[in-house]
Amino acid sequence: MAETIKSTGLRGQSAGNTEICTVGKSGSGLTYRGYDIQELAEKARFEEVAYLLLKGELPARQELNGYISQLQRSRGLPEALKKVLEQIPSDAHPMDVLRTGTSMLGNLETEQRLEEQQAHADRLLAVMPSVLNYWYRYSHFGERIETETDDTSVGGHFLHLLHGKPASDLHARVMNVSLILYAEHEFNASTFTARVCASTLSDLHSCVTGAIGSLRGPLHGGANEAAMEMISRWSSPDEAERQILGMLERKDKIMGFGHAIYREFDPRSAIIQAWARQLAEDVGDTHLYAVSERVDEVMWREKKLFPNADFYHASAYHFMGIPTKLFTPIFVCSRLTGWCAHIFEQRANNRIIRPSADYVGPEKRAWVPIEQR
Amino acid sequence: MAETIKSTGLRGQSAGNTEICTVGKSGSGLTYRGYDIQELAEKARFEEVAYLLLKGELPARQELNGYISQLQRSRGLPEALKKVLEQIPSDAHPMDVLRTGTSMLGNLETEQRLEEQQAHADRLLAVMPSVLNYWYRYSHFGERIETETDDTSVGGHFLHLLHGKPASDLHARVMNVSLILYAEHEFNASTFTARVCASTLSDLHSCVTGAIGSLRGPLHGGANEAAMEMISRWSSPDEAERQILGMLERKDKIMGFGHAIYREFDPRSAIIQAWARQLAEDVGDTHLYAVSERVDEVMWREKKLFPNADFYHASAYHFMGIPTKLFTPIFVCSRLTGWCAHIFEQRANNRIIRPSADYVGPEKRAWVPIEQR
Repeated sequence: MAETIKSTGLRGQSAGNTEICTVGKSGSGLTYRGYDIQELAEKARFEEVAYLLLKGELPARQELNGYISQLQRSRGLPEALKKVLEQIPSDAHPMDVLRTGTSMLGNLETEQRLEEQQAHADRLLAVMPSVLNYWYRYSHFGERIETETDDTSVGGHFLHLLHGKPASDLHARVMNVSLILYAEHEFNASTFTARVCASTLSDLHSCVTGAIGSLRGPLHGGANEAAMEMISRWSSPDEAERQILGMLERKDKIMGFGHAIYREFDPRSAIIQAWARQLAEDVGDTHLYAVSERVDEVMWREKKLFPNADFYHASAYHFMGIPTKLFTPIFVCSRLTGWCAHIFEQRANNRIIRPSADYVGPEKRAWVPIEQR
Repeated sequence: MAETIKSTGLRGQSAGNTEICTVGKSGSGLTYRGYDIQELAEKARFEEVAYLLLKGELPARQELNGYISQLQRSRGLPEALKKVLEQIPSDAHPMDVLRTGTSMLGNLETEQRLEEQQAHADRLLAVMPSVLNYWYRYSHFGERIETETDDTSVGGHFLHLLHGKPASDLHARVMNVSLILYAEHEFNASTFTARVCASTLSDLHSCVTGAIGSLRGPLHGGANEAAMEMISRWSSPDEAERQILGMLERKDKIMGFGHAIYREFDPRSAIIQAWARQLAEDVGDTHLYAVSERVDEVMWREKKLFPNADFYHASAYHFMGIPTKLFTPIFVCSRLTGWCAHIFEQRANNRIIRPSADYVGPEKRAWVPIEQR
């Protein structure tokens, strides 16, 4: 019965309006609320970008200071959430930990009314690094860490909890840029998941929990981890070139290159590449950055494929001592802002998202008693 | 900047092919894999329908017996999951409990390979009543119940755990029908959530966790609870008629009537109505069923609106002693089968679901230093 029409994945079909972001729009690359990603990455704080995404405009000085203080005060974990995180084994997928932690928080701090949405979004933004690192440090090292710190940035807080000491200025700066670059990207699959969930008028924790589950998928959030696993296998640029050519010949999938929407380049890549280079110098790297650059050159020369946001993120994170399996969870700490902005937008002009399907199954058939099957 | 185009929610747009179900297709009402819902509700066991949805064909006797035994053996909760459920307060939303329980199980029994999908789906089907009732009985009554029983049906197991004693034949029979009626309904919002998540190649627990979050929304899964709250306020059919007329005059939303897809009637309604009537007689009901029928009559007379699957489910569940707040979780125990069938189908012919958006936000604008805002 089944026909074999290829799934189209709604590609190119509009699923609604948005005021939040343009991706690959002619002449504008990537903008958040009209501001170019390049300028944001150069000049903004991530908390300022979060404010922009969630509230629509850049904050004035006093508003930003107030927002930073609020996030600082919201990093503590409820006891019941700590107990839940302590039940999750060390070999769990870290995205499953964030999904479970967010869902559990929804039991303890349930969104009761629409007016609370901003407060819950801010709380999630502040607490997500605590959820991840509390589990990580407890399950891997048996330590029950204090998650409330006086770091002024989300990125600094993350690194502080992970390493047990305040981050260097350089590292805090790179985390800041990284969180800005990953913050928002229109109707990608995880954001769309959040919007479908929001369209039923479900609560914010359900929407974010669902989005985390979608970002977990290797076709979506896992590309920087896969890129890291690939480049870490090679000890020199020449070896990398040989191996990449072999992979291309075998038509292996090479992660971190090309993009579903961008056609010519990913405007985020050059920005994180520059920081990866600086981190390589800072850490005295002997080959990883050079390997990355060679892979980039070969991919362009052979396939005219450009690195996307994920590729140079791999080495950048690695140079900051971040375990590879925590790369995608950092994406969550950032993209939360875009997800929540989209949830707010969906709620403000809602109709339940309920597409149709083309039926290609069996024609109507009569029941067959079990003895006759 | 913003235009005020109404969200369309992808209504009438196809998001893909399916072999699982027809909804409202001319002349066929609702079919699962080609079998009419009326015939399934009359002749099938829910476990047989689950098998049909998940594997494509009705089981032979031996296959069905094997499947029932397998479900019976899979009702136990891991210790870590029990500890998590014990951390969730009694005033939590029961759908948040199922969302968290499913997500936690994903940490303990993680799907590692595609070949495991059927086993994980079966496990979720067997264990979901255990998750809900373990939390319910512990948080409300301080009891740590044994979730492994020898009931032969999912519905019987559910009622046994809830009430602490085996269900009567009538109640087990009604639960069986109810679970069949709710099992599958094409690309509704929760199923579509599961498919979007599956399209990133994420794991089964992520997909189901996301779907639970969407079903939680009052525009989707909560209609039978809302119907129950409404009809339980009225002590006679005449009072119900007066109040409904008042609600219609005030243009209040009346839950349990009409449907996004069905235009003339919901084929599930008459089936559950007949069982609600029988339960009313069995329990010696004095007014609730009569109130329901009067509401039904008035809605048709005044608005030509028909009851959907949810409306008579309210009184049916109530007559079986099920607390109103557990109505939507029963929906989960049933719809799990449809969700998983759709996850399998998405995975078998996948392209990541990534629609476009129409940008209606601000034009590109230059950065403004914070001192000048």
